[in-house]
Amino acid sequence: MTNSNDTTAANEGHGLTPAEVEVRLIDTVTASFAQATDERLKELLTSLVRHLHGFIRDVRLTEAEWNAAIEFLTKVGDITDDQRQEFILLSDVLGASMQTINVSNQPYKNATEATVFGPFFVDDAPLIDNGGDIAGGGTGQPCWVEGVVRDTDDNPIPGARIEVWEADEEGLYDVQHEDDRVYGRAHLFAEDDGSFRFWGLTPTPYPIPDDGPVGQMLKAVGRSPMRASHLHFMVTAPRMRTLVTHIFVEGDELLTSDTVFGVKESLIKNFEQQPADAPKPDGRDLEGQTWSRTRFDIVLAPEGA
Amino acid sequence: MTNSNDTTAANEGHGLTPAEVEVRLIDTVTASFAQATDERLKELLTSLVRHLHGFIRDVRLTEAEWNAAIEFLTKVGDITDDQRQEFILLSDVLGASMQTINVSNQPYKNATEATVFGPFFVDDAPLIDNGGDIAGGGTGQPCWVEGVVRDTDDNPIPGARIEVWEADEEGLYDVQHEDDRVYGRAHLFAEDDGSFRFWGLTPTPYPIPDDGPVGQMLKAVGRSPMRASHLHFMVTAPRMRTLVTHIFVEGDELLTSDTVFGVKESLIKNFEQQPADAPKPDGRDLEGQTWSRTRFDIVLAPEGA
Ligand SMILES: [Fe+2]
Ligand SMILES: [Fe+2]
Repeated sequence: MTNSNDTTAANEGHGLTPAEVEVRLIDTVTASFAQATDERLKELLTSLVRHLHGFIRDVRLTEAEWNAAIEFLTKVGDITDDQRQEFILLSDVLGASMQTINVSNQPYKNATEATVFGPFFVDDAPLIDNGGDIAGGGTGQPCWVEGVVRDTDDNPIPGARIEVWEADEEGLYDVQHEDDRVYGRAHLFAEDDGSFRFWGLTPTPYPIPDDGPVGQMLKAVGRSPMRASHLHFMVTAPRMRTLVTHIFVEGDELLTSDTVFGVKESLIKNFEQQPADAPKPDGRDLEGQTWSRTRFDIVLAPEGA
Repeated sequence: MTNSNDTTAANEGHGLTPAEVEVRLIDTVTASFAQATDERLKELLTSLVRHLHGFIRDVRLTEAEWNAAIEFLTKVGDITDDQRQEFILLSDVLGASMQTINVSNQPYKNATEATVFGPFFVDDAPLIDNGGDIAGGGTGQPCWVEGVVRDTDDNPIPGARIEVWEADEEGLYDVQHEDDRVYGRAHLFAEDDGSFRFWGLTPTPYPIPDDGPVGQMLKAVGRSPMRASHLHFMVTAPRMRTLVTHIFVEGDELLTSDTVFGVKESLIKNFEQQPADAPKPDGRDLEGQTWSRTRFDIVLAPEGA
């Protein structure tokens, strides 16, 4: 508080050690949320500040590194638009999306496990009947998928709404094209006995979009951008917890290195390869193509579980 | 790994508790950086992941909250451009910028303390002679600033480069206007005896830009966007640690609630109010205005301190 060229310890944080100065700052910042009327928001920001400052203190972050972080986030913002969500990719490759799924979908009895939502769902996918085809012109090997939707007491859930979406054999979702094409996605409803069935495409691996800053980060740490082959599901029914999940392909060598950490053992399914002449479940003519088939029985937890 | 509707514990994370599943994910994510050749990058990302996941686990983040966070960051990216750096504002109001300054500028003897850089520095500010005016047409009460630049052994540092910048009395920096006007900034060099002096403007409080998502966040927690009144300095000299700091105005009621947590006791200076008829240090004619004067003696730490 003086203008003199003070050379006492008072000039060095008033006798506080550097660690005490750092801790005092955390206390000051968290105290700044004291007026928040939303208690949950206060809790979130307080914890965020503690962990963010913990990170800065643990690594002794340099100003150059802080600058690089600001620049990185700015680039993530620059590439993000209606078609491209680089912040979600960043959350995904840091495992933050999957950890959110873990903590917000606690296991309940034998309910099917959840995994990441991903950025490629769209709201208005076509309706198909049971036994219909979701390919919609998307290329790939035909794949017969069937199962039953039940609750954890083994009761079927008639009318459960099943959304499915997947990439084509080039590894691209329809929404990754410039035009308005729609393929590889649909919704259908479980029958009275909870059963469902449809033709899709045998899932193939694909890279997450890696021409942006998140791709550069993966490259810098020697990580592959590849996702294990999978087929997305979202299943909803009244009074049941919404299930967002995938099924993965048994034997896929990417199962142990999925770049968004989405694989759970219970979600790995046998996609059984079928010769072209194997009889199809619905007698469909596949014009000499080989095909595959898998079974995915779905168990929904009750709402609020 | 089976297609049966498995109801055993194996379906629930293979017998792991939810906490074990969460910890295993953290281990898997940090292991994914094992191939990084840059050891520091590996250390940074590993610590970041531990703290980020720690946050998600501690608050039991919901998917709705994760979505809100993605949306918030997307808005921060949207408003950021060449003129507006909302990521820096976010770092500032969470105290992350100040904490980075703390950990990367450890106190050294009686060296002047650092504080946040802020987003308003520009590289090519005009050169002035000692005794010159940095106002450049910016409005406000004239303020005489003088001091000496020394090292921690009390030796003057001739030729030290001193960058100064500040807002006008409206609380705006020149770069916040649409046009190319330049005011309230300059650089000068210390004399042979280390001394410097210039006319500036008495600092006044101003809000950080609060019409974006960071401003909304401050509003949501009942925090003011105001910064305590201050004058920015950056001082460089060969073989000395670069000093980025401000001086603050003794008596300013915002000293205890500066929204970026930049205030340090040792940086609070007496800006002594002067009547219009008080003789000016350089005999300048201020045309009947009142003015103020302050002294800021600067001590630089050696490079690498
Ligand atoms: Fe996907
Ligand atoms: Fe400022």
